[in-house]
Amino acid sequence: MREPIVGIIMGSKSDMDVMQGCADQLDEFNVAYEMLVASAHRNPAQVHEWATTADERGLKVIIAAAGKAAHLAGVVAANTTLPVISVPMKTSDLGGLDSLLSMVQMPTGVPVACVAINGSKNAAILATQILATSNNVYKDILKVYKEKMAL
Amino acid sequence: MREPIVGIIMGSKSDMDVMQGCADQLDEFNVAYEMLVASAHRNPAQVHEWATTADERGLKVIIAAAGKAAHLAGVVAANTTLPVISVPMKTSDLGGLDSLLSMVQMPTGVPVACVAINGSKNAAILATQILATSNNVYKDILKVYKEKMAL
Amino acid sequence: MREPIVGIIMGSKSDMDVMQGCADQLDEFNVAYEMLVASAHRNPAQVHEWATTADERGLKVIIAAAGKAAHLAGVVAANTTLPVISVPMKTSDLGGLDSLLSMVQMPTGVPVACVAINGSKNAAILATQILATSNNVYKDILKVYKEKMAL
Amino acid sequence: MREPIVGIIMGSKSDMDVMQGCADQLDEFNVAYEMLVASAHRNPAQVHEWATTADERGLKVIIAAAGKAAHLAGVVAANTTLPVISVPMKTSDLGGLDSLLSMVQMPTGVPVACVAINGSKNAAILATQILATSNNVYKDILKVYKEKMAL
Amino acid sequence: MREPIVGIIMGSKSDMDVMQGCADQLDEFNVAYEMLVASAHRNPAQVHEWATTADERGLKVIIAAAGKAAHLAGVVAANTTLPVISVPMKTSDLGGLDSLLSMVQMPTGVPVACVAINGSKNAAILATQILATSNNVYKDILKVYKEKMAL
Amino acid sequence: MREPIVGIIMGSKSDMDVMQGCADQLDEFNVAYEMLVASAHRNPAQVHEWATTADERGLKVIIAAAGKAAHLAGVVAANTTLPVISVPMKTSDLGGLDSLLSMVQMPTGVPVACVAINGSKNAAILATQILATSNNVYKDILKVYKEKMAL
Amino acid sequence: MREPIVGIIMGSKSDMDVMQGCADQLDEFNVAYEMLVASAHRNPAQVHEWATTADERGLKVIIAAAGKAAHLAGVVAANTTLPVISVPMKTSDLGGLDSLLSMVQMPTGVPVACVAINGSKNAAILATQILATSNNVYKDILKVYKEKMAL
Amino acid sequence: MREPIVGIIMGSKSDMDVMQGCADQLDEFNVAYEMLVASAHRNPAQVHEWATTADERGLKVIIAAAGKAAHLAGVVAANTTLPVISVPMKTSDLGGLDSLLSMVQMPTGVPVACVAINGSKNAAILATQILATSNNVYKDILKVYKEKMAL
Repeated sequence: MREPIVGIIMGSKSDMDVMQGCADQLDEFNVAYEMLVASAHRNPAQVHEWATTADERGLKVIIAAAGKAAHLAGVVAANTTLPVISVPMKTSDLGGLDSLLSMVQMPTGVPVACVAINGSKNAAILATQILATSNNVYKDILKVYKEKMAL
Repeated sequence: MREPIVGIIMGSKSDMDVMQGCADQLDEFNVAYEMLVASAHRNPAQVHEWATTADERGLKVIIAAAGKAAHLAGVVAANTTLPVISVPMKTSDLGGLDSLLSMVQMPTGVPVACVAINGSKNAAILATQILATSNNVYKDILKVYKEKMAL
Repeated sequence: MREPIVGIIMGSKSDMDVMQGCADQLDEFNVAYEMLVASAHRNPAQVHEWATTADERGLKVIIAAAGKAAHLAGVVAANTTLPVISVPMKTSDLGGLDSLLSMVQMPTGVPVACVAINGSKNAAILATQILATSNNVYKDILKVYKEKMAL
Repeated sequence: MREPIVGIIMGSKSDMDVMQGCADQLDEFNVAYEMLVASAHRNPAQVHEWATTADERGLKVIIAAAGKAAHLAGVVAANTTLPVISVPMKTSDLGGLDSLLSMVQMPTGVPVACVAINGSKNAAILATQILATSNNVYKDILKVYKEKMAL
Repeated sequence: MREPIVGIIMGSKSDMDVMQGCADQLDEFNVAYEMLVASAHRNPAQVHEWATTADERGLKVIIAAAGKAAHLAGVVAANTTLPVISVPMKTSDLGGLDSLLSMVQMPTGVPVACVAINGSKNAAILATQILATSNNVYKDILKVYKEKMAL
Repeated sequence: MREPIVGIIMGSKSDMDVMQGCADQLDEFNVAYEMLVASAHRNPAQVHEWATTADERGLKVIIAAAGKAAHLAGVVAANTTLPVISVPMKTSDLGGLDSLLSMVQMPTGVPVACVAINGSKNAAILATQILATSNNVYKDILKVYKEKMAL
Repeated sequence: MREPIVGIIMGSKSDMDVMQGCADQLDEFNVAYEMLVASAHRNPAQVHEWATTADERGLKVIIAAAGKAAHLAGVVAANTTLPVISVPMKTSDLGGLDSLLSMVQMPTGVPVACVAINGSKNAAILATQILATSNNVYKDILKVYKEKMAL
Repeated sequence: MREPIVGIIMGSKSDMDVMQGCADQLDEFNVAYEMLVASAHRNPAQVHEWATTADERGLKVIIAAAGKAAHLAGVVAANTTLPVISVPMKTSDLGGLDSLLSMVQMPTGVPVACVAINGSKNAAILATQILATSNNVYKDILKVYKEKMAL
């Protein structure tokens, strides 16, 4: 079994419904990943440990999903130099505008790569695009994917 | 000199213009405070240290001010059981709606007490109200303040 | 039976579904509370009486929940120096953005501590955090709660 | 000098710049009015007194202007059966959307007649239209005004 | 049978579900009214005729309900000096924010008295408050209503 | 001198600053136009007359600009079968979101072709595109314009 | 069978439910059209080909429907001088505000004629209005339609 | 001179003020880049050519900045499998909410990595983070940058 190179973290078990699409897409692209449910607010030590060791554990890219005051991606990004992709979760009251603004409006110095509200599949594709900058196997996979999509 | 019982933290030096109003109000109410500029994203270790030791250092209430994807109050609240008051900073593009939603929409388990956009003075009053729940000197100060305001 | 130290007030019977979560959390934390359904607009005299006597009745913290043009927390805060926590109710048309802005954007001099839309449980935790600033029993309860949450 | 039949109340001295336009328009329409600066939050007793006695003092219509969490019109409407016109003030952060929603989204049972953000002149015209429902002098004045406007 | 003194107009048959609450409230207050379904956009001539003759037909107050780009109240107000109350209809996509802004943001010279989104009952109460400025029977009815509501 | 085939109408003199860009663009494209300042709310009869006779006066396309509760385009469209292009004006409080929603959210049966907030030049280009559907001179002008733009 | 003169393009099969209303309305008006499902993002070459050849294929007007970051209409408009009508699709998270702003806020030089969120029928009517600027049969059809609507 | 590995594209010359910060940050990180001003709408062929050849020209990451209906990043992403970072430009009317939604809400299959409104510096950091996934020189540069920031 291969070592994971993408780390998926989400703030709540309830995010799994949406984030399963991310895992499925990575599976389809043959990208090994690890997955963790941990909240930046309820499990800060666990998130901190996971983020600070992500690089040495061999991860290349991180995908963080959270809703409402969605700090998870930002907290992870504060503790690693790996690229962090954020997936704002749709919320039942404000539709996800709160999650989106909490994720995308990061201050200078600590970027996060935000995709669409509930855009879990796109997070997987973006992670693979990043991996493909130094791996032609993934580049070929993405080209095939893009060509199929255009049919 | 008295020990500080309120801790003010803000994400950027540029927040000081607004947050000076908070300090001035605490001075007027004779509440001792300490102040720190540290970003949840750029200075995570410093914020973590400050938050986790806040209680043992003698702080009773925390006031956290930040703008844009304003995670500071949430990060502090994740690391203490002290009440955390958040002041969303006005932003030049979205007017502070981003800061507000990033602060107020906290998930279950980790509350933050949000005041108005740029509401730094109200944060000081709210902190004093909290202190006054066990200190009649502050209660009297607040009653006088309220009476004067109503004149 | 112990005297209530937290007062919960809500603008409409229909808010009870959400606010029951607040009461349940206070019960779990062993915090005695009283509860009232009264609208700032339909029952102004009752709200006024309740707010102005809250302090002398022994309340330490107030939690006010309302929806739409949600003035309840502000009206209560105008008539007491106790800390007032506000819970904006989700609305069927604007998702609760109206309730949120009506509660959080309080003018200088009269703060309200706003939590998330429908954040009734967090209101209870915040109230207990305020009580814990002078009561180590509550502080210990909150620490245990926080530790359990992090497991 | 005639008795005022319209009462103008505003939450802050800073609202006077805008509300002078209301007074000027009432002057132009020859409608006698009284004016008060009093905040629903900072001067609740004064506002309560003013609102509850408005009818017996001879007022027919009330115009209430406030900004941010703009409760003034609602508080007045809660304490009188006179028609209450509300003027949401433009705010420096959210442009007045907060004032507007705080004023217009009144709960069932206690209406407020909301005009545009900073729409002080229109508040005066609307007040005069209400007076004109039982006074043909005002009706004629309004017809002339409308005709002139259409030239 | 008495002559109608309130005119209710709505832009679409589908608004009737909500606006029935307005009619019921007027019935409860014993206010005679007439009702018309006509769109400012689809039936401009009919609306124009209805609005320009409203005064001479004996109407004292007009209530106009519409959704989306809700011009109905404004079009009516442009053609009469009677006070026009507007009821923005909730919409399936933007929740009624579109209807609200289309109704409340009227330009100087032509006011509309806007109530809450779907606030049909409040429109009836406001209309009765306007009638009560010159009719003590309605004033007494409103006082009783207000007292009952406060019980 | 040629007969105008595009009619430009705007709700207020203050819109002229922005709409001059529309006129200039039509001049550049050699499209003859007429221009009128008239408000749907303040000058309803004038607008009605202008709209109902637009077709017989030889106009092919109408451009209507207005701000706030911007009904002008809708009122014109209600009274003609000519295509009506709407230009929502930027507003000082809500940035033009009110104008935009008031113009674009037209009900079924009466369309309006909305361009960007303050998009006066694009209104001219769109009008010319419409004229070019039956006039190759304009089609050639537009092709040259497009080619130049792409240099 | 007649040659299509209106081209309908939509970004996703799921848009067909709404866009069928557009096709039905064109059928009712006896306007021949062609229809294509192709995404600006997933099928860029196909969209490019379709747009650049639209004019020579005989199309007079284009209707483009898409949701979320709705670039389809803009991409088509960038590649043709034909008038392009855009229909922003309602979205499950932001209600269609994202689609609307992505379509209507086009930069200077490349206009798009935006109708209401999900306003597919109005897109058909607007297209026919454009055709009617040079075809009296369509003008008569539209006049009859307008008259029937006003009954 | 080294070959560029990051491509910066922006929709308008006026974006250069903000995007200079991106170039400066890449210079500071010693990342070679190329820069182009070209609009997705006004220069579609140029953008298409640039995007489709980006990979073979040696680019590893693309940064695209645009405002209003900001399609540039999406158009580029539709034509390459390279990771595309988008920078929504602040706008004078809606503050950049239009640019943000037009960029971040990309449909499934074609992701874009969105940073904050006007977040040009963060785009440079994110690009470098992506490069650092296969280049330890950049990783070391980023670690030093992060450490300095935390001082």
